[in-house]
Amino acid sequence: MTIDNEEEVITLGHGAGGVLTGKLVRDIFLNQFNNQVLSRLGDAALLDIDAHRMAFTTDSFVISPLFFKGGDIGRLSVCGTVNDLAVMGAEPLFIAAGFIIGEGFSLRKLEAIAQSMRAAADEAGVAIVTGDTKVVRSQDIDELFITTSGIGRLDTAKGLSARPVTPGDTIIISGTVGEHGMSIFIEREAIALAHAITSDVAPLNGMIRAVLEGGCEVRCMRDPTRGGVATALNELAEEKGVDLLIRQEHIPVSEEVAACCEILGFDPLYIANEGKALFVIDPEDAQKAIAILRKHPYGKEAQVIGSVLEGKGHKVFLETFSGAHRQLEELTEDQLPRIC
Amino acid sequence: MTIDNEEEVITLGHGAGGVLTGKLVRDIFLNQFNNQVLSRLGDAALLDIDAHRMAFTTDSFVISPLFFKGGDIGRLSVCGTVNDLAVMGAEPLFIAAGFIIGEGFSLRKLEAIAQSMRAAADEAGVAIVTGDTKVVRSQDIDELFITTSGIGRLDTAKGLSARPVTPGDTIIISGTVGEHGMSIFIEREAIALAHAITSDVAPLNGMIRAVLEGGCEVRCMRDPTRGGVATALNELAEEKGVDLLIRQEHIPVSEEVAACCEILGFDPLYIANEGKALFVIDPEDAQKAIAILRKHPYGKEAQVIGSVLEGKGHKVFLETFSGAHRQLEELTEDQLPRIC
Repeated sequence: MTIDNEEEVITLGHGAGGVLTGKLVRDIFLNQFNNQVLSRLGDAALLDIDAHRMAFTTDSFVISPLFFKGGDIGRLSVCGTVNDLAVMGAEPLFIAAGFIIGEGFSLRKLEAIAQSMRAAADEAGVAIVTGDTKVVRSQDIDELFITTSGIGRLDTAKGLSARPVTPGDTIIISGTVGEHGMSIFIEREAIALAHAITSDVAPLNGMIRAVLEGGCEVRCMRDPTRGGVATALNELAEEKGVDLLIRQEHIPVSEEVAACCEILGFDPLYIANEGKALFVIDPEDAQKAIAILRKHPYGKEAQVIGSVLEGKGHKVFLETFSGAHRQLEELTEDQLPRIC
Repeated sequence: MTIDNEEEVITLGHGAGGVLTGKLVRDIFLNQFNNQVLSRLGDAALLDIDAHRMAFTTDSFVISPLFFKGGDIGRLSVCGTVNDLAVMGAEPLFIAAGFIIGEGFSLRKLEAIAQSMRAAADEAGVAIVTGDTKVVRSQDIDELFITTSGIGRLDTAKGLSARPVTPGDTIIISGTVGEHGMSIFIEREAIALAHAITSDVAPLNGMIRAVLEGGCEVRCMRDPTRGGVATALNELAEEKGVDLLIRQEHIPVSEEVAACCEILGFDPLYIANEGKALFVIDPEDAQKAIAILRKHPYGKEAQVIGSVLEGKGHKVFLETFSGAHRQLEELTEDQLPRIC
């Protein structure tokens, strides 16, 4: 038994993607389901089926509100799964979708959401091939949860290098951070702004393919969703056994997101993105990768934001505007629940 | 647009697996996601990835209560997905699990459920390789939804015959019907019975493999979950373009389930099963299949229950105890919500 306290219960923080989620996954799920594939804890599982290497992933979406500037739960549920596969170096092929719908939910809204899933699937070049629908009594007439799962093909020729992440490797982000989380927060809290923030939700497989096929030596990728860039980098540092350094002045943040975060006391490095990828890449290929990314509609603001350090402390450091280095911790509290 | 009425909303019946679920799937999901794989609407999608044929399926589980005699939502979520793959003739290999958990849910209960998933996965010989956890505010401290997805390998040598279902083919059920649904109903309504009914929830891939490897010419299989045997057979008749006849006197029903259904006014043919398979099989192999099934712990009560007719009305007929034939309609109303 791994639960210390008989009375311990799930809190919103367990779903935030940070420290508590990690503890829950290790204490309960890894402990019970223990197997080599799961314990790698990537954005998708890498499977060997006969001579084929495949990627397999699942994500449940509980976002509230269901419709927001730049997208809806439908687009999000397809893009989230497409991106989980793409950052593992896989070509997303097939999506399964499970719907849990509150009694009283509008069929028109459900149709609009399905339309949006189809549009995202078409854009990503994937097919939604199987699904399931369940209905539950609900206090909330707007209750809809979508769980998408995806299968991707891993072409090892184009896939990720088996070489480890090494000191000197370059860290790139494909664009400005924090748009998705701030968009949802503003929508939900009905904060009136001169310019509402648009979520960045987008399928990134095309952009990622361009980088891989462009011959860039990509060591690994991550999609910085729940918990933002800071959490994704902490997971990476932990998994690869390295330290990372990013520079605050190089991190692209839109004026709107920066202003909102300032006013509301959020750090954009912890805010969820749904259309951004982090790359760790051979420093010799960094400029080539930046050039390829900036040519792609979803990578126009791509930036080198830092590098892999010599240390083995599994830590992420931020060089602030003043030049000081401070450790960037994993997310410990849930800033924004139900963000995806 | 396919929604007749602007004000139309989701009802519990849309999740019951019968006529309304079918209409929802056709009007919204098939209409939007339209592709050849999805439109086959099997228990799992059949995919061609390079030279490989795979099966892919997803199911959301919203059962209430979470723990019941014979199992819990964990065992159910693994067995449901294993069985969806197995009845497509696939060998289940990998499972993904998405958890949506209400705030305040007991970690001890979650651990017990994960333990139960692991036990079912071990029994079925599958690995739970990837997952996701989301937490939502909930009125109900016992709220937990699990969506499992599964991938299976289709070995065409052992797989299903491409031959169509033809008049004269035999219909077999692997055991007594209605245990799962009645078990949940009794648990939920706190009905005191001398002998509580035990759910039949079980992974059927081993039993199904025995039949296929035993050289039986199986035309197709179904797992009669939501909507029961009557609904599964109606879907089969519709898909294959045939009429079916089953004989009431041959349908195995336990004394407890028969008595409960009698008192409560339910028809066991419409009650969900979670550990039964329907086989349509070459009549020459029917007795061999029955012999193989009865040797398996989950097939001891296997029975020939009917056959495929000459007609093309896509209808299912029941020969009653008195010898009369009446049409067995698809489920139209939800007898028992949140049964799986």
